[in-house]
Amino acid sequence: MTEKKKTTIVLFSGDYDKAMAAYIIANGAAAYDHEVTIFHTFWGLNALRKDNQVAVKKGFLEKMFGKMMPRGADKMGLSKMNYMGMGPKMIKSVMKKHNAMPLPQLVEMAQEQDVKLIACTMTMDLLGLQKEELLDDLEYGGVAAYIGDAQDGNVNLFI
Amino acid sequence: MTEKKKTTIVLFSGDYDKAMAAYIIANGAAAYDHEVTIFHTFWGLNALRKDNQVAVKKGFLEKMFGKMMPRGADKMGLSKMNYMGMGPKMIKSVMKKHNAMPLPQLVEMAQEQDVKLIACTMTMDLLGLQKEELLDDLEYGGVAAYIGDAQDGNVNLFI
Amino acid sequence: MTEKKKTTIVLFSGDYDKAMAAYIIANGAAAYDHEVTIFHTFWGLNALRKDNQVAVKKGFLEKMFGKMMPRGADKMGLSKMNYMGMGPKMIKSVMKKHNAMPLPQLVEMAQEQDVKLIACTMTMDLLGLQKEELLDDLEYGGVAAYIGDAQDGNVNLFI
Repeated sequence: MTEKKKTTIVLFSGDYDKAMAAYIIANGAAAYDHEVTIFHTFWGLNALRKDNQVAVKKGFLEKMFGKMMPRGADKMGLSKMNYMGMGPKMIKSVMKKHNAMPLPQLVEMAQEQDVKLIACTMTMDLLGLQKEELLDDLEYGGVAAYIGDAQDGNVNLFI
Repeated sequence: MTEKKKTTIVLFSGDYDKAMAAYIIANGAAAYDHEVTIFHTFWGLNALRKDNQVAVKKGFLEKMFGKMMPRGADKMGLSKMNYMGMGPKMIKSVMKKHNAMPLPQLVEMAQEQDVKLIACTMTMDLLGLQKEELLDDLEYGGVAAYIGDAQDGNVNLFI
Repeated sequence: MTEKKKTTIVLFSGDYDKAMAAYIIANGAAAYDHEVTIFHTFWGLNALRKDNQVAVKKGFLEKMFGKMMPRGADKMGLSKMNYMGMGPKMIKSVMKKHNAMPLPQLVEMAQEQDVKLIACTMTMDLLGLQKEELLDDLEYGGVAAYIGDAQDGNVNLFI
């Protein structure tokens, strides 16, 4: 009996294009029958936010962060050539033309392929994000959970 | 008979300094007798563009991307302190002073050391880049090619 | 007798948040009894600068770089939402509130846990940084030192 290969990705970035790359690699690895984990930390958590506002109690700074950060995968900006939001529109337009999957669908596909999506609890604490504001069917953990997974990983990436 | 060690790098970034780091690590690993692959995706493809304009037929958005993105390794900006192009000049000037190899030469050296340079076909499609516009002697592939390489890699990096 | 697991991190970025992520992972891995190395290159070297000015002789460009780059971990900016320095203040303020460790303390903790902190000598040369300007108890090395460490690593990241 051979063991499954393992891919782990730390998604730190809150950029649409980088998150796309992370999810394309994750979905590709899952298709290759890897056990795959994406650990969402810092701005990478934004990819897991629900796109509607959720009523939760927050302090002032946490509210500010909540407002300033993109609400969900579809609203994230580009790492390059963002041009006040023009860039993402162009990218999404060429993606549509070439039938490439937009980020929210890549996230859905990952969930269907049993990619383990972890939300970093330390970041949730810092930025004041609560479970109600994030997608369903996530796991929650800290750096220990990540190290535990990654130390047996074949492909470990920080994106 | 011992197997060769293996290094794979995903070059996602289109920044001059990050591409330099990628190629320095790649050339170092090749010198250590690793089998080395650089998989160029998204903005990282710009490092493989020829520096002259090549006449190819394109749609409007693809032409826009073609114009907005740097044409070749030498024209890329810095990830930090770019200052409208001043930063790259300063860096190139200190590099010259210290006899450090500029990026286009690092790419050449990688090709001489048989580092496998892969251009991501999905990105080429999206950004409308065609083979004629890229350097010679590249390989072409998608995420499956990358996973296939990386799952046996000793050092796997996303840059 | 089992061998120790090994984590290596290339810290390329000069962003406060990315350096935090690097040091949190490093400290986590060290707590898990990994042998840990952080190789500081390019802007990542700024995390190792002393926060006071040190009198050393430099050329003009090297002086410019020295002035333009943040002097030490505490003065680094954010990769996202920096807002001319407002972002780091907000982050540090929520970190304090949640008793999260600020970057300079994370660096100290790493040193106490025997995380090997390497300064990239090629970058020091390029940016004109001298040993006197960096923290004590560092090691110094180039890409060969990095490859030597990383090729036996279980978790290798580029941040």
